[in-house]
Amino acid sequence: MQAEMQLKDILQSGVEITDRALERLLPPITQVPASIHGAMRHSVFAGGKRLRPILVYEAARTLAKGELPHGIEDLGAAIEMLHTYSLIHDDLPALDNDDLRRGKPTCHVAYGEAIAILAGDALQTLTYQTLSALSCPARVTVEILRLISEATGTVEGMIGGQVLDLEGEHSKPTPESVRAIHRAKTGALLRVSVVAGGLYAGATHHDTIRLTAFGRKAGLAFQIMDDVLDMTQNSEQLGKTAGKDMASDKATWPAVFGVEASRNDAARLINEAFAELEPYGDHADGLKAIAQYLVERTH
Amino acid sequence: MQAEMQLKDILQSGVEITDRALERLLPPITQVPASIHGAMRHSVFAGGKRLRPILVYEAARTLAKGELPHGIEDLGAAIEMLHTYSLIHDDLPALDNDDLRRGKPTCHVAYGEAIAILAGDALQTLTYQTLSALSCPARVTVEILRLISEATGTVEGMIGGQVLDLEGEHSKPTPESVRAIHRAKTGALLRVSVVAGGLYAGATHHDTIRLTAFGRKAGLAFQIMDDVLDMTQNSEQLGKTAGKDMASDKATWPAVFGVEASRNDAARLINEAFAELEPYGDHADGLKAIAQYLVERTH
Repeated sequence: MQAEMQLKDILQSGVEITDRALERLLPPITQVPASIHGAMRHSVFAGGKRLRPILVYEAARTLAKGELPHGIEDLGAAIEMLHTYSLIHDDLPALDNDDLRRGKPTCHVAYGEAIAILAGDALQTLTYQTLSALSCPARVTVEILRLISEATGTVEGMIGGQVLDLEGEHSKPTPESVRAIHRAKTGALLRVSVVAGGLYAGATHHDTIRLTAFGRKAGLAFQIMDDVLDMTQNSEQLGKTAGKDMASDKATWPAVFGVEASRNDAARLINEAFAELEPYGDHADGLKAIAQYLVERTH
Repeated sequence: MQAEMQLKDILQSGVEITDRALERLLPPITQVPASIHGAMRHSVFAGGKRLRPILVYEAARTLAKGELPHGIEDLGAAIEMLHTYSLIHDDLPALDNDDLRRGKPTCHVAYGEAIAILAGDALQTLTYQTLSALSCPARVTVEILRLISEATGTVEGMIGGQVLDLEGEHSKPTPESVRAIHRAKTGALLRVSVVAGGLYAGATHHDTIRLTAFGRKAGLAFQIMDDVLDMTQNSEQLGKTAGKDMASDKATWPAVFGVEASRNDAARLINEAFAELEPYGDHADGLKAIAQYLVERTH
């Protein structure tokens, strides 16, 4: 019961501090040129759960004995902008051609394709602008810059995963292809959310190794459950077009391994992830609660 | 005669060191996923003049008494990647819908729209990954990160200029609109090329103010002459579709001020830019030669 209360608080306060930071960091809708700022805000404030920023905060708390380091909400907001840029471009007609995201019209449906392409570009740019103003030592900023840019690039990063996903649409998914896509497309950014939060809070080399292993396992568990939900829920429950992955023969975990085995894989990965956090005792409770939530959520 | 030789050397060696750095920094075409690496290389190695990297190098030489600081070619290459990403996205069907760039098929014509969108995204990402590994002190890297991300953003930066340009296509250009678009769309990145090169070479606050003023004026002169060439040359001479700006009623300098006044404006701006470089004596000769070249080129 106490754990449930704690989780609810973590999720709610995580959304609040992230949204306040995003509100401050995104140019106002009145700023010229207004259309692109409207488009950026449309997608950033479309009701996202802010899971990546929350991973940033809880990883930092794990390292900082339960405290939230000053200014870390800007790091959380920067990573959320990066995630939103990838969703806007993924939804474009030339890619997944999705009209609905989190129950709202996607960016290109609301603002046209040209502005949606540029709004995605601008959110990536604003991510890096935000990183350049973080309140941590410059060498930590540069290390975070390296991690985030690698995790979103073409070589085992987010864009690489999007390409593999696109190219795999017309061939039968294999265990190898589905693992490679998951690791790159979603896993990499979840993993660096954890590691960047830790670095901001002063992680040592050994801490970084543990957080990296935790982030890799928890990130994969999250993506597996995302695929399971896509297969087992309807569009209304998900707030996006359901079953699209199946329809387009995309490489998903349950398509290759089955729904039950997928659920078991996710649960096993979360337990392995927890083991990495043992040295931090109670200070890791928040991070564990989030990881548990990732595999137990129903939408 | 000596000045002409110097200019030829600067241009040629600038292309060579930039291309060597780009060859090393871009993933090989054999790296999975191969399609996106092919697309990135297609556009990066399409015969660009490397003017922005050359501005980086000559600004650094101005500050470093004629020497080229170790590792600066990675900064030049990073800025060239950013420029190439903006060209790839600008050429997309939803934006300028251009089939030809530097005499070659544009990225989406050669690789399809989905891969072109992601290749542009990936070049922006690789820019920041490259900045994270620069061989200068971390605080200088963070300052360069801030300048470059601001100059390519939506508020008086490159993306903001693209949006103003798009939205202005169906209304008559005014002197105010054409100045705002030029300052943002092309001017900002040219200006920070100069300033970033100076910072890498150890520029003081006073140096930075001078280089910023130089970069602003020389950048505007460059864009004015680009518009004049678009109006007065044919497609074969330009290596891209000529007259498109006129045909779409885009806000160009000669359309608003006339061709002769535009040429005079560019020449006056270059002279004002030169005045900023007086304290550096002969060490600024290379930077001046490039600025002169920008307004005298014929294609």
